[in-house]
Amino acid sequence: MTFTQMLAAAAQKNDSLLCVGLDPDPAKFPAHLHGRADAIYQFCAAIVDATADLVCTFKPQIAYFAARRAEDQLEALIAHIHERHPGIPVVLDAKRGDIGSTAEQYAVEAFERFRADALTVNPYMGRDSVEPYLAWPDKGVFLLCRTSNAGGSDLQFLDVGGSGTQERLYERVARLAAGEWNSSGQIGLVVGATFPAEIARVREIVGDMPLLVPGIGAQGGDIAATVGAAAGGALLINSSRAILYAGQDENFAAAARRVAEETRTAINRYR
Amino acid sequence: MTFTQMLAAAAQKNDSLLCVGLDPDPAKFPAHLHGRADAIYQFCAAIVDATADLVCTFKPQIAYFAARRAEDQLEALIAHIHERHPGIPVVLDAKRGDIGSTAEQYAVEAFERFRADALTVNPYMGRDSVEPYLAWPDKGVFLLCRTSNAGGSDLQFLDVGGSGTQERLYERVARLAAGEWNSSGQIGLVVGATFPAEIARVREIVGDMPLLVPGIGAQGGDIAATVGAAAGGALLINSSRAILYAGQDENFAAAARRVAEETRTAINRYR
Repeated sequence: MTFTQMLAAAAQKNDSLLCVGLDPDPAKFPAHLHGRADAIYQFCAAIVDATADLVCTFKPQIAYFAARRAEDQLEALIAHIHERHPGIPVVLDAKRGDIGSTAEQYAVEAFERFRADALTVNPYMGRDSVEPYLAWPDKGVFLLCRTSNAGGSDLQFLDVGGSGTQERLYERVARLAAGEWNSSGQIGLVVGATFPAEIARVREIVGDMPLLVPGIGAQGGDIAATVGAAAGGALLINSSRAILYAGQDENFAAAARRVAEETRTAINRYR
Repeated sequence: MTFTQMLAAAAQKNDSLLCVGLDPDPAKFPAHLHGRADAIYQFCAAIVDATADLVCTFKPQIAYFAARRAEDQLEALIAHIHERHPGIPVVLDAKRGDIGSTAEQYAVEAFERFRADALTVNPYMGRDSVEPYLAWPDKGVFLLCRTSNAGGSDLQFLDVGGSGTQERLYERVARLAAGEWNSSGQIGLVVGATFPAEIARVREIVGDMPLLVPGIGAQGGDIAATVGAAAGGALLINSSRAILYAGQDENFAAAARRVAEETRTAINRYR
């Protein structure tokens, strides 16, 4: 089963386009987890178990684990998702980007060590920095295209059309990703929810390719505009902090479930 | 002491612009290290001890450690460099790139957990994805600008000058990095040795900013052309495989030293 098929099956089974982002910040954990050596795993696993029937994917952000020497907890978390919630794909958010021989090492890290089903990758170094990941035929690769941060425009919004028709850098990335780079249909794109008009433009370029859209919730993106703009193909709408930190006490997982359910419902209203 | 000062002092003390890249591949290790749990650390520490008086920096590539669950060996290796060879800066090659709050986590990973003196960073997400690293005032940040791989041209060589004067994307990155992004003088750039004319163009744009140049040795870049093109400011010329795997047996470190010394001499001939 390819990543795209796995994603479609999970989205259908749970009637959901919601991706829960796992960005664990121990300073925001409820008090009863403070000081526990496995607090990151315990927190994330509780969120996962409380929301697994409401999502189409989980997306752990590796930096939150790496800063705290917690790669072992990330391994355990992804193993937990595969074991307890089989069929829910895991997108490892690591935004890797390097040349061929080094990219192969990152692919081993993501797909063999951590057992992720897909990985986020930075396109700045070009096609041969993307290809090594495609050697795992059942895995997915989400290329950064148009990111939701303020500085995203510094490069991504530059006109690369030369003296001809205007073409923004993010449009070129979309065109390459959907065309000559996507020999095997494993590529998706990351497009920020803060720019609905650009989500629509990307959808126009790439056809039904999966779009991973962060920026809903804490980052302020609009659900209705996002769902409308991305219509016509696979969509994953990520929410992290608004769900993870919905509750402050030992009932945090139940609070996370309530917000996840509300978010799924809000998304489905516009599908 | 800032990173730039530390780099200049090491380059002067060892009369060297050579950066030894530590990309440990256990399949290429000499037989006596096979099967050892700490083989990666032992191999790299031996290379470091054999070459530390010949280099201006060491540059470990994190993917080679992460693919093998060897972050602890990377921590031990960098601690070893700081303890045994104080004053030789360590550039962690991780090519991180993410938004502000996540970039802060990567900065903690690189500068606090691994105790690197500088980090390579991908500029695709723009200024606010670079700024968090600058909050460590004694650390350096090398932004990818023009990379030495074949696909490097896919995006980096695009003309972003609109209908006005031609400006390649890598030139824009250089201009931003040397201008409005570089509020604190902590930024350097990565420019591949396979494109000497573009090294010269970057030097023209950025003044005396440090340039980290991979692609010498196994990747085929020309030393004379590189040194000439980069004249006018700080320069680090990286060589990895040609030095690491110069020898195949238990005398591998001595073989590495010979090649490192030849490379330093070859570089110095053109300074």
